[in-house]
Amino acid sequence: MTRELTSDLAGIIPPLTTPLTADGDVDTASLERLCGFLLDAGVDGLFVCGSSGEVALLSDAQRAKAIQVAAGAASGQVPVLGGVIDTGTARVVDNALAAQKAGADAVVATPPFYVAPHADEVIRHYRLIAAAVDVPVVAYDIPSATHSPLTRSVVAQLAGEKTVAALKDSSGDLDGFRAHLAANADTGLRVFTGSETMTDVALNLGAHGAVPGLANVDPHGYVRIRQAARVGDWATAASEQERLRRIFAIVDVADRTRIGLTAGALGAFKAAQYLRGVIDTPRCADPLLPLESSEIDAVRTILEREGVLG
Amino acid sequence: MTRELTSDLAGIIPPLTTPLTADGDVDTASLERLCGFLLDAGVDGLFVCGSSGEVALLSDAQRAKAIQVAAGAASGQVPVLGGVIDTGTARVVDNALAAQKAGADAVVATPPFYVAPHADEVIRHYRLIAAAVDVPVVAYDIPSATHSPLTRSVVAQLAGEKTVAALKDSSGDLDGFRAHLAANADTGLRVFTGSETMTDVALNLGAHGAVPGLANVDPHGYVRIRQAARVGDWATAASEQERLRRIFAIVDVADRTRIGLTAGALGAFKAAQYLRGVIDTPRCADPLLPLESSEIDAVRTILEREGVLG
Amino acid sequence: MTRELTSDLAGIIPPLTTPLTADGDVDTASLERLCGFLLDAGVDGLFVCGSSGEVALLSDAQRAKAIQVAAGAASGQVPVLGGVIDTGTARVVDNALAAQKAGADAVVATPPFYVAPHADEVIRHYRLIAAAVDVPVVAYDIPSATHSPLTRSVVAQLAGEKTVAALKDSSGDLDGFRAHLAANADTGLRVFTGSETMTDVALNLGAHGAVPGLANVDPHGYVRIRQAARVGDWATAASEQERLRRIFAIVDVADRTRIGLTAGALGAFKAAQYLRGVIDTPRCADPLLPLESSEIDAVRTILEREGVLG
Amino acid sequence: MTRELTSDLAGIIPPLTTPLTADGDVDTASLERLCGFLLDAGVDGLFVCGSSGEVALLSDAQRAKAIQVAAGAASGQVPVLGGVIDTGTARVVDNALAAQKAGADAVVATPPFYVAPHADEVIRHYRLIAAAVDVPVVAYDIPSATHSPLTRSVVAQLAGEKTVAALKDSSGDLDGFRAHLAANADTGLRVFTGSETMTDVALNLGAHGAVPGLANVDPHGYVRIRQAARVGDWATAASEQERLRRIFAIVDVADRTRIGLTAGALGAFKAAQYLRGVIDTPRCADPLLPLESSEIDAVRTILEREGVLG
Repeated sequence: MTRELTSDLAGIIPPLTTPLTADGDVDTASLERLCGFLLDAGVDGLFVCGSSGEVALLSDAQRAKAIQVAAGAASGQVPVLGGVIDTGTARVVDNALAAQKAGADAVVATPPFYVAPHADEVIRHYRLIAAAVDVPVVAYDIPSATHSPLTRSVVAQLAGEKTVAALKDSSGDLDGFRAHLAANADTGLRVFTGSETMTDVALNLGAHGAVPGLANVDPHGYVRIRQAARVGDWATAASEQERLRRIFAIVDVADRTRIGLTAGALGAFKAAQYLRGVIDTPRCADPLLPLESSEIDAVRTILEREGVLG
Repeated sequence: MTRELTSDLAGIIPPLTTPLTADGDVDTASLERLCGFLLDAGVDGLFVCGSSGEVALLSDAQRAKAIQVAAGAASGQVPVLGGVIDTGTARVVDNALAAQKAGADAVVATPPFYVAPHADEVIRHYRLIAAAVDVPVVAYDIPSATHSPLTRSVVAQLAGEKTVAALKDSSGDLDGFRAHLAANADTGLRVFTGSETMTDVALNLGAHGAVPGLANVDPHGYVRIRQAARVGDWATAASEQERLRRIFAIVDVADRTRIGLTAGALGAFKAAQYLRGVIDTPRCADPLLPLESSEIDAVRTILEREGVLG
Repeated sequence: MTRELTSDLAGIIPPLTTPLTADGDVDTASLERLCGFLLDAGVDGLFVCGSSGEVALLSDAQRAKAIQVAAGAASGQVPVLGGVIDTGTARVVDNALAAQKAGADAVVATPPFYVAPHADEVIRHYRLIAAAVDVPVVAYDIPSATHSPLTRSVVAQLAGEKTVAALKDSSGDLDGFRAHLAANADTGLRVFTGSETMTDVALNLGAHGAVPGLANVDPHGYVRIRQAARVGDWATAASEQERLRRIFAIVDVADRTRIGLTAGALGAFKAAQYLRGVIDTPRCADPLLPLESSEIDAVRTILEREGVLG
Repeated sequence: MTRELTSDLAGIIPPLTTPLTADGDVDTASLERLCGFLLDAGVDGLFVCGSSGEVALLSDAQRAKAIQVAAGAASGQVPVLGGVIDTGTARVVDNALAAQKAGADAVVATPPFYVAPHADEVIRHYRLIAAAVDVPVVAYDIPSATHSPLTRSVVAQLAGEKTVAALKDSSGDLDGFRAHLAANADTGLRVFTGSETMTDVALNLGAHGAVPGLANVDPHGYVRIRQAARVGDWATAASEQERLRRIFAIVDVADRTRIGLTAGALGAFKAAQYLRGVIDTPRCADPLLPLESSEIDAVRTILEREGVLG
């Protein structure tokens, strides 16, 4: 039996970081605290095991645990989306069944990667996933990670036939985003941006919502953009967005000659959550290296300057 | 206790395709036949669950099954290498433990992908894998699939400290390959090319062996190159290689406006194996689309022209 | 003596196509007609010898001729910008002196390309150009053509020291565009988008203007966006932009298995101008192949549907 | 009337650096000395205004001057090839006519770049160039600079119809190089590698010659490879190549956080020529920044270690 989404998928849906303990397990206490922090801020859903959740670095057991904790914390107030990111159909289906069992209200899947699929193979991929699970499937376009872009025509096909219920567009291509909106005016597809820095613009163009990693750090800011957008107060939305753009500079504080792009960005999100007292340690998953204390100080300085830390 | 490789890792080690049944299971009978076909041809090892084995499209259960069958078929005559391709350390370790349990004599791992790791994070990745398993670890450079290249200095570091025992270089960069050979003259690293079309050149430059996908189709040809190379008969090696280069044209017979690059190449390998009577069906894993019968005919024509089919 | 811009650089500045005669010369009569057509529509400047002007395919003599004709047509009513696109500093300077002599009120230059310059070498490039000419220099970021992106810090440095007066951003990266606007709030840099499809958004974000190739085809539409933006009527701007987005589909009518991306896009612009009676032939410069008559018909259909052709 | 090449195009043809005076003119005395140095070493041709000659950074006048000087120095002993690198057909033709007038025995042209041409447009480009000049045309594949690769089928078409006489392949793709050789067994195309580090392998595969930038620094080494290759002494060729590979490390001594890739590589070539007393200053063309003295010392150390400097 198909479980219904607890509400229409819309609004601010943070892609949660996955807090970890010193020995690399999912830190369930911190994750519960994070869920509470986000729900209190008024977010409209929780996306667990996304790119910001270090899904690529979590074991199957860790993925299931993270979804389970978030589903428990949400307890039906808002939908919980579970990322089922993997290279091929059989693997995604296994992930999706586990996510569903763990309590996910929807699953979020990229096209196949590592391989080089044809558009029709991507469509087949999503059809097979949708046939295997009882929850809605969200298509996830993040070519910077997958190198396997979702084209407009593939999305339109999948939306038109109701194979996917929503799109998370993390391509960084706002022109393409606008094209998705135009092409899906009648298909019912829910279109979300993954951009931290153009949420106001995306909502102004007609997006159903946003899935910004920085909402892990300042969910209240994104909720304010959403509220301003609802009443057409775009000046307020833009002003809030500009503040969040300045905060987003935390992803660049790490020394890139020492640690990677992923470690620098996700380490900064976790450092900020740690500084705000939401999670216990800013540790990232193996093999990512941690931010140094001077880099965490640089995160603190930005948060203080922008009024996120008192 | 560390199991030793049954012999020094060297020579022709085909990256086996993974034969599938009509309902998508591993076709164990066909896989056993394929192992026998390759062993009879005189190959020096079996690499299961590599890119040519559609590893990215196989479930965990399918991966373990394929390794188990190959380990049984090899029964210690030649080493069996198990691909443990996954996006992050925890996932690769889980894969590697399963591969080891299934009988792999060595595991083959890429750098992390989907994420963007720093060189030091790649090194850490391999150290954690090596610490978790009892079998040798082979580093696998295939940036066309992972978009996460293995640099010369990372390989030299891993080889020098004995974290990895061998390198499979599928980068297509013969200049870099030659640099790996020079840099590892003293580290003991075993250096293999993944190229189907430059095996003779790679051996002439000093490579320890080759892991060519086309050896699924014509293992005897690659074994002949290896034998000619051993006695310094480079003219024979080149002539055999030229023949194999012409056979390799089968990867381009498929209509790329209809199916993807991966389906076209791996579908052609499987079609050739099917035409030679080695496997029962040329089916690829979901979501790849199959070659059409006219395309299989084109494969047949090439095989006949080059004396592979009678 | 430095010539002043005839007015502040702002608003809609079409990057003119370069009409050609049957034997490949600049069609001066058509070019004059095109200038008149654009000026009548109310554009705020003319950019000659840009990417839409096939600058990369014009000889030095053709470039000078095109600028001369436009300068004559504008006769001081609006500024004429001359593209001086070339691979290195000495070549750009030679181009710029010729453009200045031909009557350009400003010159538009990319970073060096073909070579791989460092940021400090890009800065040096612009300083040397600015020192060599008497007219303002506009920096042009079009990495899809040059593969040599202009970074935010380079632009900010050049703007802060007044080496460049304006930026044409054809990167397609609206997030970066917004960052340029924020970083140059105080430098006086005039920031233009090169996007045909996001002009309304760019103006809403604070852009000084737009340089959209499609303004060759429907300048009135872009002028209407500009007028709506001036009075804060974003709904009208968006509605006009949506219409122009639908017209922009003309760049995709050509069969890409037959002609290239550049020929398809610029050929469509010229076909539309030809169909509107503005230029005499839709010919592109060598070695580009022409649109076929069925493709020109497809352009006509789109123009008729969107009310551009009666 | 078509001028004939002074001899069959074959062997070692260094792509000369362009020595410059302190004020940026072509240093004709140094260039003459460089030509003499190379001719004395026994090279088989001189390629002026190639990528190693900073062609992208030279003005038209500088290009013509450099070709004139080299043609005078060669005075018919060996052919002089003139690079006519530019973005489009009209510009290349203007360059080619000037090169021919300056004394070039052949012209070397890339496909169009900056624009995105179709294969048939690339073919048309070369046909128009060949029709415009009286000297042979050499096709130049250097996608790292042009981002506009020459495909195998385009080369085979141009060779088969005798539009181009030779290919300089600087793609770095030895597999493709081997395919060019196989495809042109009967067309008469002369196939040259642009690789500094795989000249021996290329000759072993059947190349007609090599155009290695490092031959500016150690022409004798490349001539020795060529002589060893002629008599089938591949061990000597490989040993010499290994020495040249170690010398090629000079292109990496520069600090890439300070200067660009082009400046680092070409600056090192010029520094080595300066240290050997061949040219007067190691200056590169604007806007490239110079090597620092510590970097020039590092070049000296490598040259001394490998016996190039006494």
